[in-house]
Amino acid sequence: MIDVTLLGTGGMMPLPGRHLTALLVRHQGHSLLIDCGEGTQVAIRRYGWSMHSIDAILFTHVHGDHVAGISGLLSSMQTEGRLEPVHIYGPQAIEEVVANLCVVVGVQFDVFFHAVDQPFRVNDLEVTPFPVMHTIACYGYRIDLSRRPKFLPEKARELGVPMTSWSRLQAGESVRVGLHLVKPQDVSGPSRRGISLVYATDTRPCKALEEAAWDVDLLVTEGIYADHEKDQGAVDKMHMTAWEAAELAARAGAHQTWLTHYSPSFRNPRDYVDEMARVNPTVTFSDDGRRTTLQFEE
Amino acid sequence: MIDVTLLGTGGMMPLPGRHLTALLVRHQGHSLLIDCGEGTQVAIRRYGWSMHSIDAILFTHVHGDHVAGISGLLSSMQTEGRLEPVHIYGPQAIEEVVANLCVVVGVQFDVFFHAVDQPFRVNDLEVTPFPVMHTIACYGYRIDLSRRPKFLPEKARELGVPMTSWSRLQAGESVRVGLHLVKPQDVSGPSRRGISLVYATDTRPCKALEEAAWDVDLLVTEGIYADHEKDQGAVDKMHMTAWEAAELAARAGAHQTWLTHYSPSFRNPRDYVDEMARVNPTVTFSDDGRRTTLQFEE
Repeated sequence: MIDVTLLGTGGMMPLPGRHLTALLVRHQGHSLLIDCGEGTQVAIRRYGWSMHSIDAILFTHVHGDHVAGISGLLSSMQTEGRLEPVHIYGPQAIEEVVANLCVVVGVQFDVFFHAVDQPFRVNDLEVTPFPVMHTIACYGYRIDLSRRPKFLPEKARELGVPMTSWSRLQAGESVRVGLHLVKPQDVSGPSRRGISLVYATDTRPCKALEEAAWDVDLLVTEGIYADHEKDQGAVDKMHMTAWEAAELAARAGAHQTWLTHYSPSFRNPRDYVDEMARVNPTVTFSDDGRRTTLQFEE
Repeated sequence: MIDVTLLGTGGMMPLPGRHLTALLVRHQGHSLLIDCGEGTQVAIRRYGWSMHSIDAILFTHVHGDHVAGISGLLSSMQTEGRLEPVHIYGPQAIEEVVANLCVVVGVQFDVFFHAVDQPFRVNDLEVTPFPVMHTIACYGYRIDLSRRPKFLPEKARELGVPMTSWSRLQAGESVRVGLHLVKPQDVSGPSRRGISLVYATDTRPCKALEEAAWDVDLLVTEGIYADHEKDQGAVDKMHMTAWEAAELAARAGAHQTWLTHYSPSFRNPRDYVDEMARVNPTVTFSDDGRRTTLQFEE
């Protein structure tokens, strides 16, 4: 299972009662954080999470509202006595930008930078970056937790595998039985659906996002405006309105979609709840601190 | 009169419910801000102030908890359509540090940097920087609003100044009456006490601070700890405890003293209110958003 907490719902600037958009994704005691704007460290504390468990920080792009909190976060990690390394992922520019932002920060743990040109793993999670359409290089991230096929004890017995070797097969190893090699797939049921989520803000609707969000359990994406008078503003600034997100989510067949990254001028997403329920009931406006646990299907 | 708002009371890192220490000083519609840590822009909005009126930002030193919010603040000023310049004052290092922090910010208004080696004016306020004792170059600031002596109409009449020229004398100009030059001081009462305040955090108790705080209306200073078990920690990290601040304030004769810049470990300043009332009743622990109006004496 994966715990997901939306640390904030704001875009452009933090407001009283509205932190900047960032997502904390937690699996088996380890976390990854996506984006870190001014005040994200406060939101992490507010919603009861620990900075200590964050192994990786993924940045979508280097606009200030998504990166300016990194110096405070790393500084607080240092104050908390961190020794473990932090891995930072993002567009090519991320290393230089973070180095600049952290001019006032001295940390004693290692910070490793990775430009996101291909899928990578953070512990058990498989992360696939994909480019979206914004004013500068910007990525969305799909996160997958795969699920092993069911182990079939009757098959193992049939093939003569002693019970003491079952755990090796379950862990993905092959086991020799007499002259025969028994492979994990020989004693496994059909493949099973894992858990998947996608995070992408700061983009026009685009094919890459639609494809990444195909059939995902959770899509966390942008609904910068809901007022149709601002439609052209979203186009001009290369953002996505709540209604564009709802259409994209429908095409992608995302199981549920959380809207976030509201413009400071978009004060009351609740005003549009009924309308959204008619347009696409799987899409909902989020509040800061929204949280869920994604679980493997029964 | 001067409006003073303490935007936060935290030191080292922002916490839920506790913004980092910064002070907004407002006089006749213009503001100056002292320090700008992560989240200071949120505190400005929370307490109902406008960024637009901020003409000058004074930095005490370049530790992250005092400067890291500058990129967000300037960025939000830009978003609000600012055209007027911003003047930034601080230690020599401030220009480079702000330039680094603002790598992700594009602003269209002018930003001027000033290393604080001598007193300067921000509109009607006279600002005197003074070096304090911290781990890096660090300044306190004394702010004075002077008060003109009382204009004495009977003297003006006696010297034959026509009433139409009184306003010029009141504005500080001399006025010719026949062959004689009448100077403002010829028609003025004795000098009058102005308004003064001092802001200094992140320092050991020191002579420069004590002298700057001499007889001030308001001293805003550091009480990083109140628990005596932490006394040595304050010495080691070059900070000032609440009790050291109370002694210094007494020696300086500050009319009132607000404590702030609490360590994240100092959770409940209220626990020490009674004790402080016995030690120095002019010294009080502050909450975020504390506000007062300093006025000329009657």
